[in-house]
Amino acid sequence: MRNLDEQTITQAVLARNASTEDHRLHQVMTSLVQHMHSFAREVNLTEGEWLKGIEFLTAIGKICSPTRQEFILLSDTLGLSTLVVAQNHKKPEGCTEATVFGPFHVTGAPRYELGADISNGMPGTSWWVSGVIRNLDNEPIPYAELEVWQADDLGFYDVQNVEFTEYQGRAVLRADAQGAYRFRTIVPNAYPIPHDGPVGVMLKALNRHPWRPAHLHFMISAKGYERLVTHVFRESGKYLDSDAVFGVRSSLIAEWQYHGTGVTPDGRNSDTPYYTLEFDFVLNATGLEQ
Amino acid sequence: MRNLDEQTITQAVLARNASTEDHRLHQVMTSLVQHMHSFAREVNLTEGEWLKGIEFLTAIGKICSPTRQEFILLSDTLGLSTLVVAQNHKKPEGCTEATVFGPFHVTGAPRYELGADISNGMPGTSWWVSGVIRNLDNEPIPYAELEVWQADDLGFYDVQNVEFTEYQGRAVLRADAQGAYRFRTIVPNAYPIPHDGPVGVMLKALNRHPWRPAHLHFMISAKGYERLVTHVFRESGKYLDSDAVFGVRSSLIAEWQYHGTGVTPDGRNSDTPYYTLEFDFVLNATGLEQ
Repeated sequence: MRNLDEQTITQAVLARNASTEDHRLHQVMTSLVQHMHSFAREVNLTEGEWLKGIEFLTAIGKICSPTRQEFILLSDTLGLSTLVVAQNHKKPEGCTEATVFGPFHVTGAPRYELGADISNGMPGTSWWVSGVIRNLDNEPIPYAELEVWQADDLGFYDVQNVEFTEYQGRAVLRADAQGAYRFRTIVPNAYPIPHDGPVGVMLKALNRHPWRPAHLHFMISAKGYERLVTHVFRESGKYLDSDAVFGVRSSLIAEWQYHGTGVTPDGRNSDTPYYTLEFDFVLNATGLEQ
Repeated sequence: MRNLDEQTITQAVLARNASTEDHRLHQVMTSLVQHMHSFAREVNLTEGEWLKGIEFLTAIGKICSPTRQEFILLSDTLGLSTLVVAQNHKKPEGCTEATVFGPFHVTGAPRYELGADISNGMPGTSWWVSGVIRNLDNEPIPYAELEVWQADDLGFYDVQNVEFTEYQGRAVLRADAQGAYRFRTIVPNAYPIPHDGPVGVMLKALNRHPWRPAHLHFMISAKGYERLVTHVFRESGKYLDSDAVFGVRSSLIAEWQYHGTGVTPDGRNSDTPYYTLEFDFVLNATGLEQ
């Protein structure tokens, strides 16, 4: 303990952490300390670089707010989020894949009736989204709860508006007895993740762009099924092969169908173009009440 | 890119980071991403644990201020600081060892003449500290600059005082032509690192105490020599074998000599007990102007 060097320090820290009775914490901290130390030794981290790391993390903390989660952005852009999602949601073939949660979910979204316009005044091109929530036996799951959130026509979420006062493009919906859901909104655009902060500086230094392909977020819960957090991406959209947060899955790309003028799904006549999306979700049964 | 899983994500992130022209950044990020991903796979990190980690880092960022650096505390308590210091200051036998910088250094400390009382009114037991700054050839190094900082009698640094308005127990001094330095102050006490924040929660969960043994910080610079950042610890003090930040080195432990009443080093008669410390520092020549 009084003569530690860059090799012996690791064992000393592990020994100090060994008396906790929280077995899982001990396991996680042991691996974390070992990998952190191995990293510092492997690259022969200098004191200047260490300090830059400290300042980077501090700046990330400082920019976090109730509507901005820069540490999630960091995790997303370094692929950690995708890794954690993937290893926690290994599902049977045929189930809808999960993808990253992202930093823009907020609680308290308004509850709407099926068919409602959830854009709440966001300007943009009208979009009717619908589908069925099913299980692997192709049976509809009645009354599943869907949470939906999305960017607007310019690629911004409501919470990114400096004058954010009300939810737009966010909803909680309940599927019907046949597992069907439907709502109206506007077509979200591709967008750069917030890159005016430390993560943006990192991406720039790494010669990486901050863009995400256009997508719609879903979180779907039903008793007896694994909760599904996922996106639906726009087929042939930009950035599908270079999503800044590594969230794209082939099975989650769907056609966002263009329509010229005509009769929209709610039976009205539209004299402007609109889009529709039909997307079914297949949940993984847990066999357990959730 | 469209079908990543918990194994392939690592290569995808490394590939995305590969176009930067900053070779060192690329090297550091490659190792960091590999170790971070290996950690998450090795412990099979759950989404709940991942979120706890995000919240932990966010809370650390939030508590950081110009006078509190919780990320340095985290690095210190996980042994990363000691590792980085050790691997960056491998020195010839006979040089004074370096140890952790700690989170309590602040810039702008007042400059004092040799012999001055740097406590600036901190209450406590008087202490006279002196010594010589030398090189490995046993030659004095003239006019080296010393920065000194310390806790008070209760174990608090000036900046921890909620009403912190002036520097206490901090000084910049210049050794004389013979390499000698001397100053007066008060005896610092052992102290717990700040443990009312997230790092304190972590230590508690790990069943670890937050205490550091009593010590005095030095940062010594001289042209042609490697800058030395170190402490001098109090022999037979508490916590020498369980320093919360792994900073103790045997060679940095010295006797803080107790004196009853008598003539103090500044030639006055003291009717209260006081302490003295003589400690010489041996700097490592760089051969380069700094």
